[in-house]
Amino acid sequence: MSNSGHIHLGGFVIAGATTHSHAAWRHPRTDPNFLTGGYYQHLGRTLERGLFDFLFLADNFAIPRRYGNGIDEALRRGTQSAASLDPRLVLALIAGATEHLGLVATTSVTYHTPFDVARTYASLDHLSGGRAGWNVVTSFAQAEAQNHGFEDHVEHERRYDRAEEFLEVAYGLWDSWDEDALVQDKEGGVFADPDKIHTLDHEGEFFSARGPLPIPRSPQRRPVIFQAGSSSRGRDYAARWAEAIFEIDPTSAGRKAYYDDVKSRASNFGRNPEDVKILPAFVTFVGETEAIAREKQELHNSLADPISGLITLSNHTDHDFSQYPLDEPVGHIQVPGIQGMAELIGRLSGKDGLTLRDIGQKYAEGVLLPQFVGTAADVADQIVEAVDNGEADGWMVSQGHTPGGFEEFVQLVVPELQRRGRYRTEYDGTTLRDNLGLGAPKDAPAPRLVA
Amino acid sequence: MSNSGHIHLGGFVIAGATTHSHAAWRHPRTDPNFLTGGYYQHLGRTLERGLFDFLFLADNFAIPRRYGNGIDEALRRGTQSAASLDPRLVLALIAGATEHLGLVATTSVTYHTPFDVARTYASLDHLSGGRAGWNVVTSFAQAEAQNHGFEDHVEHERRYDRAEEFLEVAYGLWDSWDEDALVQDKEGGVFADPDKIHTLDHEGEFFSARGPLPIPRSPQRRPVIFQAGSSSRGRDYAARWAEAIFEIDPTSAGRKAYYDDVKSRASNFGRNPEDVKILPAFVTFVGETEAIAREKQELHNSLADPISGLITLSNHTDHDFSQYPLDEPVGHIQVPGIQGMAELIGRLSGKDGLTLRDIGQKYAEGVLLPQFVGTAADVADQIVEAVDNGEADGWMVSQGHTPGGFEEFVQLVVPELQRRGRYRTEYDGTTLRDNLGLGAPKDAPAPRLVA
Repeated sequence: MSNSGHIHLGGFVIAGATTHSHAAWRHPRTDPNFLTGGYYQHLGRTLERGLFDFLFLADNFAIPRRYGNGIDEALRRGTQSAASLDPRLVLALIAGATEHLGLVATTSVTYHTPFDVARTYASLDHLSGGRAGWNVVTSFAQAEAQNHGFEDHVEHERRYDRAEEFLEVAYGLWDSWDEDALVQDKEGGVFADPDKIHTLDHEGEFFSARGPLPIPRSPQRRPVIFQAGSSSRGRDYAARWAEAIFEIDPTSAGRKAYYDDVKSRASNFGRNPEDVKILPAFVTFVGETEAIAREKQELHNSLADPISGLITLSNHTDHDFSQYPLDEPVGHIQVPGIQGMAELIGRLSGKDGLTLRDIGQKYAEGVLLPQFVGTAADVADQIVEAVDNGEADGWMVSQGHTPGGFEEFVQLVVPELQRRGRYRTEYDGTTLRDNLGLGAPKDAPAPRLVA
Repeated sequence: MSNSGHIHLGGFVIAGATTHSHAAWRHPRTDPNFLTGGYYQHLGRTLERGLFDFLFLADNFAIPRRYGNGIDEALRRGTQSAASLDPRLVLALIAGATEHLGLVATTSVTYHTPFDVARTYASLDHLSGGRAGWNVVTSFAQAEAQNHGFEDHVEHERRYDRAEEFLEVAYGLWDSWDEDALVQDKEGGVFADPDKIHTLDHEGEFFSARGPLPIPRSPQRRPVIFQAGSSSRGRDYAARWAEAIFEIDPTSAGRKAYYDDVKSRASNFGRNPEDVKILPAFVTFVGETEAIAREKQELHNSLADPISGLITLSNHTDHDFSQYPLDEPVGHIQVPGIQGMAELIGRLSGKDGLTLRDIGQKYAEGVLLPQFVGTAADVADQIVEAVDNGEADGWMVSQGHTPGGFEEFVQLVVPELQRRGRYRTEYDGTTLRDNLGLGAPKDAPAPRLVA
C-alpha cells in the first residue's frame, strides 16, 4: 500500500447499458440515457466528487454470438456488449468535465496497430493533463474477429507473443520525444529540437513502425498500464507490464492467492511489487439500515435473467451453453472451469446440485463479483478487511443501478472510509500516477520475458 | 444555397500548432498550449458563439519525411503534422463543451477497418447529440505507411476502389439498427427488438464485416460525409458520397470551375446538387481599418518560412523539392502541377520568374488559400461575392494566429454578415445536418460508380 495506507478506488463502467450486473438496465432507478454525453459527464463528476482514483471503461467489439450461434437473445435480453459506444471518445468527453479523475479505457491489441494506440493514449494523456490509463486486452471473441475481417480469433499463446511486442513498440513510441524536445521559440523560429526526437525503426515479428510519434512527451510520459491476466501466461504478462490489475474473484482466499502470486511474479521481473496495484471488483448495495440494503440487493437480483447470464458466460468461456438442459444439475457438463465455478457458486450460496439456471442467474447478477451489502460501516468493513488481509491494494466499484450505485457509494461509504483515515480527503496530485501512488515511470521498458 | 440564402461557415483546425499558416505558431498572439484540452474547448466555444456550422479537424499520421528524406527540418521549423493529437479524441472533448457546433474529424480509410470507423463516428454522433461529421481521406504519405507497418502507400486508383467499398460497408453498419430497435422496456425485460437489427455479412474485395454494429441508430443515422477530392477519380468519389466538400483554390475562376464540375458530377450520380455543399477555404486578416488589416497580414507573412512551406509542398505532391536550388527560377523543374502552380502564384503576386523560395514562401503563408484582408465589410464582401457568383455554398475559415483568428472573425465579420441578412442569428436546429441545411439522410446508399 502507498499514500499512507490509503485505499485505491476505481469506478467500473462500460459505455453501454450493462456492465457486470445484467439487471441494472431493468432497475427502476437506472437512467436509460446511456447513449448521451451528459450521462458520462455525470458519472465522471460523481466519481470525482468521491475522490476516486479513476473511472475504468471496459470494451468489447461485438454483440455476443457464442450462445446458440446467434445474437437475438443477447439483444432482446440486453447482455454485456449488446450495445456500447467507443470508450476512447467517452473518456475524452469526460476529460473535459473533470480535473483530477484518472481515465482508463480498454483497447484491444488484436485489432489496432501500436502506432494508432500509442497516438490515441498520448493524446488522451495530454488532453486530460496526465490522467490517462490504458487497459491492455487481447481480444477473444470470434464475433469480434468477424467484424474486422478475420476468419477467427488468434490462438492464445500467439496473442500474448503479439501483445508483448505491441507494448514494446508502444513504449518506444512514447519515448520518442525527450522531455524538453518541444521548444516553441517564436523569435528564433525553432519549434522543436530534432536532436531530442528519436525514430524507432522497429522491425519485429508482428509489427514494424518507424516513428517518431508526432506527439511531444505527455504529462505522464505514457498512460498507466492496466491489465487483467488470469491464465499463467496472462499473469506473467500483467506482472511484466501492468501498473494496475483488475481482478474478479468472489472469495477472500482466491483473491489472496492471486495477489501473492502476481506480486511475486512482478518481483521475478525485477519490479517492486508496490508498483503493481491489484484491484478486485465488487457490486455494492448500501442502505441506511442493513434491512434496507438487503431489500435493495433482493430487488436487484430478482431482475437478473439467467439466460442473459449464460450468454455472457458463453462469451467469456468461448463455449456454447445453449446445448444443455437448464434445470438439471451441471455435474455432467465437461467444460474446463465450469465444475469449479459451480462448486464455488454452490458454496457461496449454500446450495447443492446447482443447475445451469443457477449459474446463469449468478452470472447475470454480476458475473462473479462479490456483493457487498449493508450499512456504510458494513461495506467499509469489507473493503478495509481485504486490504488489511493482503488481498488487494484497493477496489473497483461496479454498479447495480446507474448512476445511483456510484452516488450512494460516494455519499455514504466514502465518508465512512475517510472517518477511518483509510481514504483521501483531497486529491494528492494532478495525474493518475499520483492518484495511484505510483512513482515516476521507469526509464527503460520492463525487461523481456525470459522463456 | 439553402437556409434562405444563408452562408455556411466551418472553422478549419488541426490538433497541432500548424494548420495552413506555417507562421501561426510564431505569431506573438498565438496561444502555445495546443496540447491541452482547454485550448480546444475554447476554439469550439468561440466558433459556437459565432454560430459556425462546424469545426473541422484535419489529420495526418506522420511527421513529414519527403523533403530531403528526413524529419529534422520539419520538426525544427514546425511544419504541418510535426506534432498533432488524435482528432477523434479532440472532437469528443469539444462535444462536451458545446451544444450546437458540428464536429468533423478526418479519419483515413487506409489504416483502419470500416467497423472501427463506423463505430467511432456512430459514437461521436450519439455523444454530441447528432453533430458528427467524418472527413474521408485516402492516405498518401509513405511516412504514414511506414508507421503502420506497410512498406509503401497504396497506389492511387486502388486506394479509391478500396475507399468505395469502405463506405459501402460503413453505410451498411450504420443502418444495422432500425430507428425503433432500442426498446428498453424495463418491466417486460426487452432491451432491443432483434427483428429490427440486421447483420451485414459483407464479403468484399477488400473487407469483410459481419455486423451488426453494437450501437443503436444515432441521431443523424450516420455522420455527415465530408471529402476533398481533386483528381477526376477523387471528384467522382466526392460527387458520389460527399455531403460537404472542402476545397483549396485561390482564384475565383478555379473555384467556379470546380463548383460547376462537382455539382454536375453529383447530378450524374442521381443526386440533388443542393445535397453537396462546397466550401473553399481562406485565411483572413481583419482590422478596424484596412491599414491595420494590411499590417496584420504583413506581420503574419513575414513570419512564414519558405523551407517549411517546401516541406509541406513535398509532402502534398510526394516529390522531394530539396534537390533544387532555392533561388533560381523554377522553369526547369519538371514535376506535374508545379509549373501551373508557379504561374498561378506569379499571377496572384504580380511577379515573374518565380523561384522555389517564392513558392515555398507562398506555401508557408497558407498553402494556397486566398487571404481575405481588410475591414469586416471588405472581408464580408469577398465571402458573399463568391457565393453569389456560384463558386461556393459557404467557406472554411483558417487562422493566421490562434485562437485570435477565430475570435476576431466572430467579433467583427459575423455581425457584418448578419446585418446583410446572409448569416444565421441563431442555430436553426440541433444537428450538423440541420446546420448545413441538408435534409434527412437518404434511405439507400448512393448508387455505385458506373465504370
